[in-house]
This record gives sequence, C-alpha cells and structure tokens, in this order.
Amino acid sequence: MKFTFSNNLMGMKPSEIRELNKMASTPGLISLGGGMPSPETFPKKDLEEIMDYVMDNYADLALQYGNTLGNEDSRKIIAEMLFKTEGFQTTSKNIIVNSGSQQGLYELAVVLANPGDTIITEEPTYVGAVSAFSANMLRMEGVDIDRHGMIVEKLEEKIKYLMSEGRKPRFIYVIPTFQNPTGYSMDENRRKNLIEISEKYEIPLVEDNPYGQLRYYGNPIKSIRAMKGGENTIYLGTFSKVMTPGLRLGYTVAPDEVMEKFNLIKQALDLATNSFSQYVALEYVRRGIIYRQIEENKRIYRVKRDRMIQALHDHMNGMAEWSEPEGGMFVWATMKEDIDTRAMIPQAIKNGVAYVSGQAFTTRNGQKKSMRLNFTFGTPDQLEEGIKRIKKTVNEHLGR
Amino acid sequence: MKFTFSNNLMGMKPSEIRELNKMASTPGLISLGGGMPSPETFPKKDLEEIMDYVMDNYADLALQYGNTLGNEDSRKIIAEMLFKTEGFQTTSKNIIVNSGSQQGLYELAVVLANPGDTIITEEPTYVGAVSAFSANMLRMEGVDIDRHGMIVEKLEEKIKYLMSEGRKPRFIYVIPTFQNPTGYSMDENRRKNLIEISEKYEIPLVEDNPYGQLRYYGNPIKSIRAMKGGENTIYLGTFSKVMTPGLRLGYTVAPDEVMEKFNLIKQALDLATNSFSQYVALEYVRRGIIYRQIEENKRIYRVKRDRMIQALHDHMNGMAEWSEPEGGMFVWATMKEDIDTRAMIPQAIKNGVAYVSGQAFTTRNGQKKSMRLNFTFGTPDQLEEGIKRIKKTVNEHLGR
Repeated sequence: MKFTFSNNLMGMKPSEIRELNKMASTPGLISLGGGMPSPETFPKKDLEEIMDYVMDNYADLALQYGNTLGNEDSRKIIAEMLFKTEGFQTTSKNIIVNSGSQQGLYELAVVLANPGDTIITEEPTYVGAVSAFSANMLRMEGVDIDRHGMIVEKLEEKIKYLMSEGRKPRFIYVIPTFQNPTGYSMDENRRKNLIEISEKYEIPLVEDNPYGQLRYYGNPIKSIRAMKGGENTIYLGTFSKVMTPGLRLGYTVAPDEVMEKFNLIKQALDLATNSFSQYVALEYVRRGIIYRQIEENKRIYRVKRDRMIQALHDHMNGMAEWSEPEGGMFVWATMKEDIDTRAMIPQAIKNGVAYVSGQAFTTRNGQKKSMRLNFTFGTPDQLEEGIKRIKKTVNEHLGR
Repeated sequence: MKFTFSNNLMGMKPSEIRELNKMASTPGLISLGGGMPSPETFPKKDLEEIMDYVMDNYADLALQYGNTLGNEDSRKIIAEMLFKTEGFQTTSKNIIVNSGSQQGLYELAVVLANPGDTIITEEPTYVGAVSAFSANMLRMEGVDIDRHGMIVEKLEEKIKYLMSEGRKPRFIYVIPTFQNPTGYSMDENRRKNLIEISEKYEIPLVEDNPYGQLRYYGNPIKSIRAMKGGENTIYLGTFSKVMTPGLRLGYTVAPDEVMEKFNLIKQALDLATNSFSQYVALEYVRRGIIYRQIEENKRIYRVKRDRMIQALHDHMNGMAEWSEPEGGMFVWATMKEDIDTRAMIPQAIKNGVAYVSGQAFTTRNGQKKSMRLNFTFGTPDQLEEGIKRIKKTVNEHLGR
C-alpha cells in the first residue's frame, strides 16, 4: 500500500518546539525552548483532594460523555472567574470548554474562514496558531509588533491593501498581553484603535489571553474583551498556565451566533471535552484555589524572569537586544549580528542549551536573528547557565 | 459586528444525538437515543485508587504537557492490550493516543483526503464519522450493508464507477464488528475480500472497532487489522466503551508514514492528549483491570440486549424488523410501514421515549423508516418500557 496524503498539510512543518521538548530529556540539556509551566507550581495536594471529591460526588457524570459545549456548572464558574480576574461579564451560554486553548484556535480557523482565505496576525505570532491556521490552509498576513504591541497604524493600511486585492481578512488574531513569543503587551490606545478598526471594517477580533493572569510588574491593562466596545471580541483563555496543562482545559468566549458554529465543529473534533477535567476545574475555581495559585505562580515566576533578564545583561550585553516583559513566560532576544538562529540550534544543543528560533513564529520567512527564551520551566540557576551557553554558542558560531 | 462563517460547515446539521442527549434529562424520558455506556459499569473504586497512585507517583508528568503522539508507556501498554484482545502485533511508534476515537476520525479526514475528495463508508454509518468527514468537506459514497456487513461485491462496482468519473476514493471506512448503527458484523469472507480490494486499488482501509470487545454471543471474528494481509489497515480503538468515555481516550494504529502526518495534525488540533487520562489508562491496563471489566460489561449488557430483543418480539412483531446483534450497543429497527422516523420524534418525546432516526446515519438521504436503539444505558425495565412507548407512538402516528 502506497499512501497518498492530503495537500492540506504541505505547508506544515514538524514543529521545532516538539523536537525541542523531545531533546529536553537529554541529560544535562537546559531547555529554554518549550512553553511549559514549572511543575513546582502544580497544586498537587489540592488536586488530589479535588479528584477524590469529584469521584465521591460526581463520578457518574465525570466519567460519562459530557455536553458538546461543556458542563454547565463549569461554564458558569468560568464566567464568574472571568468577571473576577478580567473584569468582563459573560454567561455560560457564551462559553465553550475546549481540549486546551489550542483546540479553540483550530475551531476558529474552521468556523470563521474558508481554505485559502486571508487572516491577520501579529508578526511574529504564536507557533501553535500558525499550526492551526496552516492546517486549515489560511493565508496569514502578519502586522509587525513593537514594544507597545501590534503596530495598529500599519494594520489599517494592510486591511485596505488586502481589500483592494479582494482578500478581505476573515479575522484578526492577537495576543495583546505578554505576547507569545515577544513578551510585549499592547498599550491601551492601540487596543482602542484595534476595536475601532475591527468594527469599522466588520472584521472579527480574536483575543488570545493565556498569560494575562501572570503579571509581575507594572499596571494591569484591561483585556480587549473587557474594554468599552470590546463585547464582540472572541476571547480565548486556558487553565494550562495557572492550574495545569496536563488536564487539557481551555475555553472560548464568543457571541451567540459563533457558539452555534462551535457546537457543530466541536462535535466533529472530539464530541466533547474531558468531563473529569471539567469537574476538577469547577472545584478548583469554586474553592478559590486558583486565585491563591495565581499569586503563588507570580511570586515564583517573577524571580525567574528577573534572573533571566539579569543574566542577559551580565552575559549578552552588546551581543543581543531583548524584551523585558512585565509578565508571561517568554523573553524575545534578537542578535545584533546577522545570525541564523535556526541553523545555530545543533551547536546550541551540543553546548547543552535549547531555545526556539524566531523562524518558528513568523508568518513570512522572517525573524531569523531572534530566539524565544522561556523562563518559567528551568530553575533560576539553570536559566543563568542557559544564557551563558547561548553566549558561548553565538561566539563559536561567529568564529570568535 | 456581523459574523460571516465558513462554508465548510454548511453541510453539517446540529446532531440529532446531541439534541436527544439534552432531552434525556427530561424527567421520565427513556432515552434509547445516545450511545452511552451504563454508569454501573464504570470501575469507580479502581479508578479512584489509580488516580491516587498516579498523583503520588507521576504527578509532575501527568499534569504537564505530554508528547504529541502520546505518552510512550501508555502507547506500549496499548500495543500489549491489542495483542491480547485483538491478536495483532504492533509497537508504540505506530500508535497515536487521541482525545477520544472521534478525534481519530477527524485526523484521518484531514490527513488522507483533500476537501472535495470522495471516500467510501458503509450505508448507514456512524453519525460521528459523517460529522468529521463533512466538516472536512469529503463526499461520502455509501455501500449498502446487510446482516453480513458491507456488501463487498457492491464495493468493487462502486470503486470502478467512481474511478471512471475521476473520483478515486481516498479511503474506505468500515466498522466491521457490531456496526454502528446496525449492530451487524462483517463475515470473514467479506473481510478477506475487502483487504484484497483495498490492496488491488491501493485505497487505504480504515477499521473502526469501538465495540469489538463487547461480544455476547457467537464466535469471535478476527479484526481486519489482525487478518493476513491486513497489516496496512488503519485501526481505531477506544477506552470509552470499556473503561469510561469521560476521560476521552482513543487511539489509532497506523503504518509509519501515516504516523508522521498524524504528528502534524495532532499538534494543530490540541497539542497532545490529556496526560492524566493517559496515565490512568496505563495503570488500568497494566493492572489487568480492563480484562476483568470486559467480562463484567459483557455480563451486564448481554442481559440488556436480550431484554430489548425480547421486548421487540413481544411488542413490535409485525410492525418492524430489527437486527439481533451478537454484541455492541445498538439494535437497528426498520418499520414495515412507510414512516418517517425523524418526523415522528416529537411525538415519541411526548410519549416519553427517544431514539435516533435512521436519517442521522445516512450518506444519501436514506434510512427514513429506520431507527437506532441503544440498549446499554437504560435499565432492562426501562428498555422494555421504551419499546412499548415506541409501539404506542407508531400506532398513534399511523392513526391506529
């Protein structure tokens, strides 16, 4: 049998991140590559207690097939949590519980666009979004990002140009807070402008907010969904960064007419999200553990973030520029010399360090000189040692 | 904001089954509609113990992001289990762990075919497959099924005809054992012929086997994957029917070159399957609980199956014909009079009973006179009462 495969996947390449996660098990390798939370933040004792409680009280439901859009009580408590942490009001009927936030991205790609359609993202943008959008054959047009987020002035130009070409974008996808991969946040003015542009051109706005709860410095900026006029924004959230990623729980908040479509595609994708995980999350929020854990995670990650930034100052000054994010999980470093960071990876691995090269996040063959550095997974000492090893690798690569 | 949606979902209709599951919570309604296992079969005590064990021994891994294709140990134990229960040999590298078997179907639709391509299924076929294939805009050509399974003689004609039209099918999808919705099994000769045809025309064969472990009567028939020459068959299995559906665990066994593509699409769909669920399943199989539970489920479901068949004889003789399956979860009943079973549903609900009309399972606007009756979820008394209520509804519908 000779298998013939779909063309859909031709644009998709094996993810560098997956490769790196595999390598992360190499003895002695320090991985700054993945986007994993630190196991020390996992609320193990609480989860054990909650799991026992769920099995004692809800076993018949938690082990059974659930509703397509998610368990009603879990969706209610997510709405409550969003009001507390993000300050916007929504109701259970506007929430779908997904098998991780990644599934939310895939659903959007199927529901809001046809194969071949154009969408707008930040440049660079989240590699998983690139993966979900590519799998659905969407054409991504990236709008550059600076330290104040997507350069919204360039967005309107881009939309006009695309419309003149008959390629009106089907949606705009942004990660406005502690963006992946750059760590930058979009300022309030740009958020306002973004809402205006979305409404003016009737192009739906998708706000992905996996890191918003993890702010270490500076004043909170309202999520777009919570701003005046932002009510139509489709909002993606997750339990992966604060509770735990292994239970695969994310959610999308969307207007009624979008929910109907989610209902169809979710049924086709996996029938419904894990019922047990949903009951665990329900108790985890109901008992207020999540609010305690947000503070705990911030305490742990702030120290790590500071250590990585300090290490960059101590070891890579003059060699690279980097973002100094006020929250989230990543630092974005750009080499001053003309280095292809992807080509440099084997050398880095040899030197015992891994990162994700900028190219993984590009919508257009860019970002060669950059790399994404994760600071949540390693210990502070590992983070510093990792930066030293990158420095060594860059020097070797340049023949110094 | 006026949302514009993809055309992809136009062919998809809200699933009748979903509606029925919702109605199943109506007080007093007896639902023969869903495809749910009975909660009395859930191994609650064992799962509670296993969950504690997993949290005590593997918490850091079970709560973390996992490998795209699944946890290595879980895949190994699935291979072991398949050798024991299905009698075929495979290895972990040819197994992907999915968020339920439904996801396996969706993956196949993306990986093996392009939008607009033609595939072959049984007629009628599993509604979830129709949903996954429709979402990817595949054109389904159904080959009729009789009490010995898909009529393979008609398959070759169909393939020749489609090829003459330039529509060579991209794969053949069958549920050969205790088929959903009919309950029929494909006999050994037809299985052999099916393998031959698949090889002759180089059309991949997909065997979906969610019910194979649940045989109540008759002699086991080898799964296609386990037969001589069946090694290239893509095989789908699940933990939903014997362990529990709420943990959303299924798996696909496939040749190396297909696995590479699964790796890409799985990353785009949801990154990886729930790690915690995978560790639970690992222990559940490793401890041998699954083998005990297969026997236990068979004992419970055999009684229910017998009661439903008896009730059909007692109350619907002359009114309908039905399958008398040797295993699985469903009976397929076809009315003798020209009744539209979908149109009859509101009346059935009023009479306190739900079923899924045949139209949900058709690839071509057929099966109007049929209905799928589930016998695993209700109690034996409810099953009999449900059949009585269907009889009453049919009589009312015919103005008797």
